[in-house]
Amino acid sequence: MTISRADLPVVVDRRAAAPLAAQISAQVREAVTVGVLGLGERLPSTRDLADMLGVSRTVVTTAYTQLFAEGWLEGRHGSGTYVADVAPGLSPPPPASPPRPASPAPTASSATAPGDLIELRPGVPWAAGIEPAVWRRAWRSAGTRPPALWPDPYGLPELRAELAAYLRRSRGLLATPANILVTRGVAGGLALLAAALVRPGDTVGVEEPGYPAAREVLHRAGARVVPCRVDVHGIVPDELPRNLRLLYTTPAHQYPLGGRLPVARRHALIGWARATGAVVVEDDYDSEFRYDVGPLPALHSMDPDVIVYLGTASKVLAPGFGAGWLVADPHLVERLAQVRVGLGDRVPDPVQHALLTLLATGDLERHVRRMRLEYARRRAALVEALTSPCDVCAPSRLLGETAGMHVVLELPAARQADRLVAAAAERGVALWTLDRYFAGPPTVSGLILGYGAAPLSAVRRAAAELRALLTPVAYPGPA
Amino acid sequence: MTISRADLPVVVDRRAAAPLAAQISAQVREAVTVGVLGLGERLPSTRDLADMLGVSRTVVTTAYTQLFAEGWLEGRHGSGTYVADVAPGLSPPPPASPPRPASPAPTASSATAPGDLIELRPGVPWAAGIEPAVWRRAWRSAGTRPPALWPDPYGLPELRAELAAYLRRSRGLLATPANILVTRGVAGGLALLAAALVRPGDTVGVEEPGYPAAREVLHRAGARVVPCRVDVHGIVPDELPRNLRLLYTTPAHQYPLGGRLPVARRHALIGWARATGAVVVEDDYDSEFRYDVGPLPALHSMDPDVIVYLGTASKVLAPGFGAGWLVADPHLVERLAQVRVGLGDRVPDPVQHALLTLLATGDLERHVRRMRLEYARRRAALVEALTSPCDVCAPSRLLGETAGMHVVLELPAARQADRLVAAAAERGVALWTLDRYFAGPPTVSGLILGYGAAPLSAVRRAAAELRALLTPVAYPGPA
Repeated sequence: MTISRADLPVVVDRRAAAPLAAQISAQVREAVTVGVLGLGERLPSTRDLADMLGVSRTVVTTAYTQLFAEGWLEGRHGSGTYVADVAPGLSPPPPASPPRPASPAPTASSATAPGDLIELRPGVPWAAGIEPAVWRRAWRSAGTRPPALWPDPYGLPELRAELAAYLRRSRGLLATPANILVTRGVAGGLALLAAALVRPGDTVGVEEPGYPAAREVLHRAGARVVPCRVDVHGIVPDELPRNLRLLYTTPAHQYPLGGRLPVARRHALIGWARATGAVVVEDDYDSEFRYDVGPLPALHSMDPDVIVYLGTASKVLAPGFGAGWLVADPHLVERLAQVRVGLGDRVPDPVQHALLTLLATGDLERHVRRMRLEYARRRAALVEALTSPCDVCAPSRLLGETAGMHVVLELPAARQADRLVAAAAERGVALWTLDRYFAGPPTVSGLILGYGAAPLSAVRRAAAELRALLTPVAYPGPA
Repeated sequence: MTISRADLPVVVDRRAAAPLAAQISAQVREAVTVGVLGLGERLPSTRDLADMLGVSRTVVTTAYTQLFAEGWLEGRHGSGTYVADVAPGLSPPPPASPPRPASPAPTASSATAPGDLIELRPGVPWAAGIEPAVWRRAWRSAGTRPPALWPDPYGLPELRAELAAYLRRSRGLLATPANILVTRGVAGGLALLAAALVRPGDTVGVEEPGYPAAREVLHRAGARVVPCRVDVHGIVPDELPRNLRLLYTTPAHQYPLGGRLPVARRHALIGWARATGAVVVEDDYDSEFRYDVGPLPALHSMDPDVIVYLGTASKVLAPGFGAGWLVADPHLVERLAQVRVGLGDRVPDPVQHALLTLLATGDLERHVRRMRLEYARRRAALVEALTSPCDVCAPSRLLGETAGMHVVLELPAARQADRLVAAAAERGVALWTLDRYFAGPPTVSGLILGYGAAPLSAVRRAAAELRALLTPVAYPGPA
């Protein structure tokens, strides 16, 4: 059935704060969610909808691209756009950008001085990219606030208010200050959740492969940690056990494989949590950085009752900043604050004041925008070098390359990944394999290439080295 | 047997950095430890030793007072000074200043505005006493250091060096930077120790009464926490079970009862740890503040292999500062750093830089000296008000009043403590009873009176209120 113009429940308001494209995409999402738009229904062409709404075609294309990337729509814009299958428990829509086979061509390798390693290990942002004046201002301001007598176990009230506004602007979260707890970061937030929700012997799930510190924090809290399989799209809800007290997951950009959890799986995940009573912990560690379309709405927005949202300043500022945030039901926030008092856990007041200044001045968001451009360039350099056509290259493919600060280069054999790490180290490039992200035997082999730490020129050099190492002449493949 | 002048193995060196009194007390300690001075041996009078060494009698009196307070010597200066029984496992020497019965007289009570509570809850220092210029300088300096790419899991090397020097100066610890780990504070250090040393189901000991957060951190790490009795002198080593993996203790100033662990018990504690293989965690949280004699040497100094030392900036600066230190064998420090990486635990870089500045400039030590005088005045006001002779007052006694930032007012009945807390709240004084420090049924009843948070005038007002409440006219005793 083709939706006629009059049937599509979309209007735009030029006086509203939200961009026109965001207004359109939000209304289409809502229409699909409540069933006004059903599976397989065809949407108007971008030209027709633009005419109907009196907006430019670019606005509609932007909205459709976003919805397409999130998995709400499928098909091609040229040959018609359709509502994708987003019912819970069914198969997910195809990913927005299917992984491409990598086949790099040989290139000259340049000698790199020892001790001058190019840092491609993941997890760290470009801390050197913070403008010194911005950094100085934040800490100078922190120094003008006298230390509190009793630290507020929820975090500074002004900071919670600023974080609520920031998360509304940047992630569309409908969070009030009462929903927010200031944490020491993702690991700190997870430790509080474990202390509040997990009893010794409880079973909890962590993505496999997944973030090792999440496993470790939950294990140290006495939980039995079971690995939960992810594929290139992210966690696989149909395979989740029914006895989990808590599931740690990274739906926006699976760590490390990079999948963006499609809408159908999001529905399935929430259905699973509702049915089993598990708490889903959504680690939104690097959603600030996406290079194809805007970030997907947080899982938390779909069901704030069962999803606890974790964010951190570690990826937008520096790992040593030492602050993050947790968004949850106010009752859970209150319980976590009590647990924190009992454990003597706190975020240093000056760190909170510095973050408050960075948010209130807009410096943090300006920095994020600058970094997004910077990382986009580095990512492009890596992707270009590792996907050039080359018939004789070892088979490999790039995963998770549309977001964050790392890509994964999947390789057919673990042996090859180990040899590449050793060879890269000889050529001055510091790398990790995927192995460290598995609790059990690795089921995917490859390299994780972080581009947060090294400047563009260094990423380019490292990419050329890797490309050279991947050619059969310089480095025979295993097959 | 009387030691002749020639036999006492003490010399002084006027060119040495250590004060003359400290030189003398150190050599007497050493002589007792190695057996050159035996139990019951009499020392020269202060006048004779002063003549022999060519120093003023004040110097010798200072040295003897310190040794007397630590439990090395006993008897009275006037009637002869003797080597006390410091053999491990035997009964401890009498305390330096036996608790005095308190018997306050009635006084006028003044109305206090609601919402303007005088804060006598313990555990917080006078953060408002930090000079604003000092605080500003520390954080301004932190803002000039760019954030690190990868946080050092041991802590900043320069900070570890400064801490080693500080602990040598202030506590006589023979620590090198390799012995030091920068922590988030006492609870943070204890959490790392638990993660590294304690397996789920292991038994650990915490003083009873003791620091609730220590119990909680160890419990959350999966340990079975058993209460270990303390009396007015501190932990009772003879009663310790033999199956503890770890014991948390506060020998310098037992929290909350205030005992200073005598030398004989220190020996016994170390003997117990050596015999059982337990790790003793010495929380030296407020040893910076003593009002009778200098602080006792840290337990750690007596046997660095089995004692892990914890210190914190929470009591010398502010609870929200968020940094502390741990001193241990370098191998254990290395293991803790590895555990920390796995858990994603860290101390924010700027916090470490600020502490580094406070130490390197001498600002921290100047602040400690100022606070010591300030707290001494507040302590005197409390002690004076609560120990005035009063024949008809309810029986009570002050404990632990020679150090730290709190005293304990022991009372004959828990009911009375509860009523006093309620009555004090009505008169504008915020108080806690001792109950919260017990894991099991409380065996001591009373109030804990913290004088870190409130200025001298407020402490005076609160002391007068308490004194009034303790009189049978205003508040009939239970007997």
